[in-house]
Amino acid sequence: MDEHKSRSATVQDFESASARRPRGARDAVAAIDHWLLGKVMRLAGQPPFSVALWDGQVAWASDSQPVATVRINDRRALIGLIVNPERLFGEYYTARRVEVDGSLVEFLQALYASKNRANPPGSWYRDLNSWINRPRPNTLDDARSNIHSHYDLGNDFYRLWLDDRLVYTCAYYPTPGLTLDAAQTAKLDHVCRKLQLEPGQTVVEAGCGWGALAMHMARHYDVRVRAFNISREQVAFARDRARREGLAGRVEFVEDDYRNIDGSYDAFVSVGMLEHVGVENYAALGEVMRRSLRSGGRGLLHSIGRNYPDINNAWIERRIFPGSRPPALSEMMQIFEPHGFSVLDVENLRLHYARTCREWLGRFERVADQVQGMYDEAFVRAWRLYLSGSVAAFAVGTLQLFQVVFAHEDDNDVPMTREHLYRETSA
Amino acid sequence: MDEHKSRSATVQDFESASARRPRGARDAVAAIDHWLLGKVMRLAGQPPFSVALWDGQVAWASDSQPVATVRINDRRALIGLIVNPERLFGEYYTARRVEVDGSLVEFLQALYASKNRANPPGSWYRDLNSWINRPRPNTLDDARSNIHSHYDLGNDFYRLWLDDRLVYTCAYYPTPGLTLDAAQTAKLDHVCRKLQLEPGQTVVEAGCGWGALAMHMARHYDVRVRAFNISREQVAFARDRARREGLAGRVEFVEDDYRNIDGSYDAFVSVGMLEHVGVENYAALGEVMRRSLRSGGRGLLHSIGRNYPDINNAWIERRIFPGSRPPALSEMMQIFEPHGFSVLDVENLRLHYARTCREWLGRFERVADQVQGMYDEAFVRAWRLYLSGSVAAFAVGTLQLFQVVFAHEDDNDVPMTREHLYRETSA
Repeated sequence: MDEHKSRSATVQDFESASARRPRGARDAVAAIDHWLLGKVMRLAGQPPFSVALWDGQVAWASDSQPVATVRINDRRALIGLIVNPERLFGEYYTARRVEVDGSLVEFLQALYASKNRANPPGSWYRDLNSWINRPRPNTLDDARSNIHSHYDLGNDFYRLWLDDRLVYTCAYYPTPGLTLDAAQTAKLDHVCRKLQLEPGQTVVEAGCGWGALAMHMARHYDVRVRAFNISREQVAFARDRARREGLAGRVEFVEDDYRNIDGSYDAFVSVGMLEHVGVENYAALGEVMRRSLRSGGRGLLHSIGRNYPDINNAWIERRIFPGSRPPALSEMMQIFEPHGFSVLDVENLRLHYARTCREWLGRFERVADQVQGMYDEAFVRAWRLYLSGSVAAFAVGTLQLFQVVFAHEDDNDVPMTREHLYRETSA
Repeated sequence: MDEHKSRSATVQDFESASARRPRGARDAVAAIDHWLLGKVMRLAGQPPFSVALWDGQVAWASDSQPVATVRINDRRALIGLIVNPERLFGEYYTARRVEVDGSLVEFLQALYASKNRANPPGSWYRDLNSWINRPRPNTLDDARSNIHSHYDLGNDFYRLWLDDRLVYTCAYYPTPGLTLDAAQTAKLDHVCRKLQLEPGQTVVEAGCGWGALAMHMARHYDVRVRAFNISREQVAFARDRARREGLAGRVEFVEDDYRNIDGSYDAFVSVGMLEHVGVENYAALGEVMRRSLRSGGRGLLHSIGRNYPDINNAWIERRIFPGSRPPALSEMMQIFEPHGFSVLDVENLRLHYARTCREWLGRFERVADQVQGMYDEAFVRAWRLYLSGSVAAFAVGTLQLFQVVFAHEDDNDVPMTREHLYRETSA
């Protein structure tokens, strides 16, 4: 299909249609639709794509060369997108009531970048959206059901497209050519070096996924690890793997909430859990850290974050990660400051996560047919949108990835420089 | 003098004195004094030193081995210390109404560490102190007079004990054996590497001291620098030195407030100014950064900070650095987040500043007689207390030193890792 030609034709149709006054009820409705859509697109900063309707009409076209065309397949979907685009775009995309012709990632990057420019922090659109789409709470019970809905989809599903160890957090690419597996190993080592692990030490991990970090620490840094997780499937997988790999004596996987962590440890680490904790629980998390990190111990939190406080994308929060809320650094400080923790080091790995998500998306697409056989088309479309949106959000700066190293206030046994992170791998 | 023996004797005197009931008015007053002092010492966490009064009586003795003895030389000073120790200890120490037998640094370290343990963030004592000793505002006029009172003491004074280039901010010790001069050079290079300066770029500096960083950047990184400062003496010194060193064409020193920075630059840098800005002006500083940092440019703020929000020591704020207020990271984020800046890297150099202050204190003590000739004894005692207090505050974690690297939200030309900071010096 000659996309450019077809676009020009429909834009022309649209422009000549707009020039005519609406004569009947249908024309009046269409004119209102177009007018409202134009408003929404201006709120989104006039992103460089076109919007075509069910009848083929182009209802909105950007001034610049469009990167994609969004097709809205019914009028109720159009109205939904006008009323709550943040939440309903994902719903309609999943149900094929909205489709995107062109690269989904490029479309989302253009949209996010445009929205960021048009709506700086504190703008009324962000405030309104934060109120309309405010997230769910995270009590102990909510947390369990929120986590169950994502992480207990079945280990077989994640095994199809994650790396061998099922590391489902941002990888680290110290050199550009690394494979995903190597970059995940580099990330695990980067975390361990930041914690300055020494043989014989004890580590507590809050939210351990399928156990890759816990087992890596035990095997390569000779430490004993207690790792907490409320995802039953992940814990079962991790226990099984630890047993098979002869690490069961050195790594204990506990199926419980981080709030129930007991004991005292040389290191506290949490990679990719904070996004699910919710700002209202940060003081509680800080209290857990305070009581479980021994004097002289080192801690690290690794979390998706934001440049300023904002809710998560409403569709992601509802359908992909219920209760999730990536924090701004000012919000993360609510974990550390009430307990006088000293923040030693913050590193932003945003572009590493863009790259990681791009890898995941590519691997997911290669097994999409298989996934559709396990679930259905809507599932594949939802995950395609989520992974594409993640690539886009990290690529344009809607999301960040923070690693924060901390210690108790009175700890003077902290490294003078960070050079030790950049020496040749010792593990 | 056999200190231990003399201490034991007076402690005994005190204990036997306490055992007796007060019989006359003088005894009653003394009993009240001791009781109140005991209250204050318990609020301070029972720090390990003794307090002796004008009559030689030990009015308070810690359970553990004391690191020093504080001598209070008149009763009004005792009452003052009971009412507002944060502000009046410095006043009385300066006027020799309070003296410290033993190491002033060790005494202050013991006091600060004890106070930190006894009064966690948010405790009523901190809140009350914050209210009683709330700092002054920093309007353009206030800022000028606040800065004048410290930085315009005379370049000759600072030349006596700072390094050759008069770098009056935290040095950087990548290896332990460095001289102060070498560590200041290492700091300047560390800052320049974090900014990723390239030849031909333009830099704006907010608060440039005596111009060392500006001249270092121009000479070794081949950039053009505009450096702002409201200290007349510093600007005059910097201009003169730039002229003598043939850098006048590449470095412009502007005697003006950071709020009046105009133009657009490849890099924005501010080293040791933020402490004087005041949290109420952070949004304004962020706006200056937003408009003066070009798209794709890099910024760095280097500032004394805290693990949690608190006012500066009241005496320091009043006598040494009027209007000063080292921020917690949550407060620093008020600079970045309203403008969507992306924080790339935060490094805490607290122990480097403890070491730097120790160097300064040693150099100051070597010229103390000369300083007394230029000013008077009270001046020397005030500066001794300020420098000793700085060593102690950084050593025990009352103060931190944060370097924050930032970029605009949409900047993808940021370094993937921080390894480039730890390669051999290229400059």
